[in-house]
Amino acid sequence: MIDPVILKGFRDSLPKDEIPKKRIIRTLEDVFSSFGFVPIDTPVLEYTEVLLGKGGGETDKQIFRFSDNGGRDVAMRFDLTVPFARFMAAHHDEVGIPFRRYHISKVWRGENPQKGRYREFTQCDFDLVGADNALSDAEILTMMHRSFSALGIERYTFHLSHRGLFSTFLATLSLEDKAVDILRTVDKLRKIGGEEVRKILEEITGSAEKAEKIIAFITAGEGKDFRSTLESLENLSGGESEASKRMREIYSLLTALGIEKSFTFDPSITRGLDYYTGIVYETFLDDLPSIGSVCSGGRYNNLASLYMKEQLPGVGSSIGLDRLLAALEELGSPLLADSASADILIVPSAGKETDAAVTAERIRTEGVKAAVYLQSDAKMKRIYSYAETNAIPYMLTFSEEGTAVKDLRTREMMTEEEAVKRIKEAKSR
Amino acid sequence: MIDPVILKGFRDSLPKDEIPKKRIIRTLEDVFSSFGFVPIDTPVLEYTEVLLGKGGGETDKQIFRFSDNGGRDVAMRFDLTVPFARFMAAHHDEVGIPFRRYHISKVWRGENPQKGRYREFTQCDFDLVGADNALSDAEILTMMHRSFSALGIERYTFHLSHRGLFSTFLATLSLEDKAVDILRTVDKLRKIGGEEVRKILEEITGSAEKAEKIIAFITAGEGKDFRSTLESLENLSGGESEASKRMREIYSLLTALGIEKSFTFDPSITRGLDYYTGIVYETFLDDLPSIGSVCSGGRYNNLASLYMKEQLPGVGSSIGLDRLLAALEELGSPLLADSASADILIVPSAGKETDAAVTAERIRTEGVKAAVYLQSDAKMKRIYSYAETNAIPYMLTFSEEGTAVKDLRTREMMTEEEAVKRIKEAKSR
Repeated sequence: MIDPVILKGFRDSLPKDEIPKKRIIRTLEDVFSSFGFVPIDTPVLEYTEVLLGKGGGETDKQIFRFSDNGGRDVAMRFDLTVPFARFMAAHHDEVGIPFRRYHISKVWRGENPQKGRYREFTQCDFDLVGADNALSDAEILTMMHRSFSALGIERYTFHLSHRGLFSTFLATLSLEDKAVDILRTVDKLRKIGGEEVRKILEEITGSAEKAEKIIAFITAGEGKDFRSTLESLENLSGGESEASKRMREIYSLLTALGIEKSFTFDPSITRGLDYYTGIVYETFLDDLPSIGSVCSGGRYNNLASLYMKEQLPGVGSSIGLDRLLAALEELGSPLLADSASADILIVPSAGKETDAAVTAERIRTEGVKAAVYLQSDAKMKRIYSYAETNAIPYMLTFSEEGTAVKDLRTREMMTEEEAVKRIKEAKSR
Repeated sequence: MIDPVILKGFRDSLPKDEIPKKRIIRTLEDVFSSFGFVPIDTPVLEYTEVLLGKGGGETDKQIFRFSDNGGRDVAMRFDLTVPFARFMAAHHDEVGIPFRRYHISKVWRGENPQKGRYREFTQCDFDLVGADNALSDAEILTMMHRSFSALGIERYTFHLSHRGLFSTFLATLSLEDKAVDILRTVDKLRKIGGEEVRKILEEITGSAEKAEKIIAFITAGEGKDFRSTLESLENLSGGESEASKRMREIYSLLTALGIEKSFTFDPSITRGLDYYTGIVYETFLDDLPSIGSVCSGGRYNNLASLYMKEQLPGVGSSIGLDRLLAALEELGSPLLADSASADILIVPSAGKETDAAVTAERIRTEGVKAAVYLQSDAKMKRIYSYAETNAIPYMLTFSEEGTAVKDLRTREMMTEEEAVKRIKEAKSR
């Protein structure tokens, strides 16, 4: 016997988790499609050099990397952004530009598994490339809004900022050359707290006064609405700029769409990566802020610089699907509530096997999920236990007079027609 | 610059392929769900020993196997059956038995890429475990029928046989000990032809007469209907048996369901693997037989023998999704015809960006996919080319008087309302 164990940091997905996960993915795909976003897929395995860049020689312990049977240095993808950049360099002529894509798939990182962290997890990325204007920025934000709304999440807030505004501000303090370190420090605000950030900023800038001014900048949105925050930040960064104009245009579009209330201007959002050059954002669930951002991203001016000469500006987001699922579960989302394997269980008594198969098929043509209990001589106790394990709400049995259906939650008896009617009504709600 | 190449035997999936693929997967998932089948997922990486068994020490060149950063001997899954067996050994108590699962996901094999063969491909497996009766056998076959019908394939035939019948027949020739070799040889009939099979059977059995009798058995169905074939095979294998009774019951169920015409009794179907113990089947497209079987499987009496003591009988099928897609493409399936990224393209003229965003959102609430063209100063030629690349059939523009929509296929002009109405009608057909 071999022990049926799986690797540390990996998981099986049981139906009670996989059914809601698929439902959530379909919901997101439907929203993305409604905006004209299209799906792509890329190989799970790629050349290590392609995934890591020429610097890939330095071992990156986070990735699953090996030599394949042909001696090639290969690795499993660790995100969906790098493969997308490679994809666009290879196929931009074929897919046309501007290009809107989504990609929902697994990625692998060999990091040490912690609570809620796994070595195999599902990312959901969507990007719009080939355009750099407020209309595209606002479209990504609108799509995020529609996605969260479609998922049945009631209260969420998108925290927006703009890298350009922050850079202009840092220039007024002559801190441009320390921008990367400062951005990374500010990015940790939620994790390590304001005092710790101030301390590190003092070390980086060598000045308590400059640290204080940075703190003032990143907290300038507290208690203020979007437009007043934007004005404060303009004042702190030397007046109107391209960046502040873009933010004003985006906010005006969001207002025209009637969704501006879900957006807040939060200058403490920086996103750690160098990569971003325009708007940046994170998404927090109002009823579960502790889980952190469930959808983050921003605008970049050059997606595929590693693989092609032409600049490819874009704006994109990434949803960590496993974290979002955990959040939806904690919030008691109705999308997760139903993991029934079927709507109705057809129980054949001995000699009624054919009737059971025929009845099930008849019910299925109504768009109702019908599972047949496969033993005709089972004890009722086992059948009830089966229905419970599979969360099946109705049970159909055969008698001399024909069929009868029981609602297993209320014990109410009814006809097959009535049960089908109720199931269809419940689905259409 | 790094060359954006991918590994030999791997592919990017562009929207023109990924959109239809997702549509086909959804169609299959909907059929599977209607029978009470539920989705599961398992890790892409597992311990090599778990995937290959204790015999995994012998290098299997077909698999992607390596030592991870923790020094574990790991491999990427090469099918979905072995992980399912491991899954059932680990979770049978939790998921309950009988258990119906489907799993649609990628697998990897390092075989030499040939035409139509890849190192990364998508399998679609569905199994019903924990029951051994005609009702379960017929259910899998019914679900296969419903699946192909839902995919819009008009002409297909399921070729059924039963391992038990063949074994009983071989026993009458005292060839039980050579059963495995004989089964594998017969399995190659379509590939190598009857004469070659006869030659190999002569070598295996050491008897031209026995080879002749085997050929007579495996061709006993030619030109005959299901019931007559079954009778001939009963005669050739010494009368009625458990196996022949099961086949009769299954056929009677299929007949009651009115789908028996899609099934043929074909005793040349053996499936190569030792694993199968009951019915076995392959599926051929009547208009494209050359592509081979697009859905194969059968009944086994012990799924998880490698990992648990309890016997777990079941019946299951596997669809090679890539091969099926290739077939649907060759047959001109309507499911593949539409890979439009959106139903309507909203083109903002300068100053109309906000109107464009608002109009797109209004149209989306009707269930219509609306993509905004993201530049307000683009030349019409570029916009038309964009619509063509993305296969978008309608285009909305703004003028002094409001909006106007053009059907890009017929050049007909119409109002926004009329266009939305037509798009919705086309969808509901």
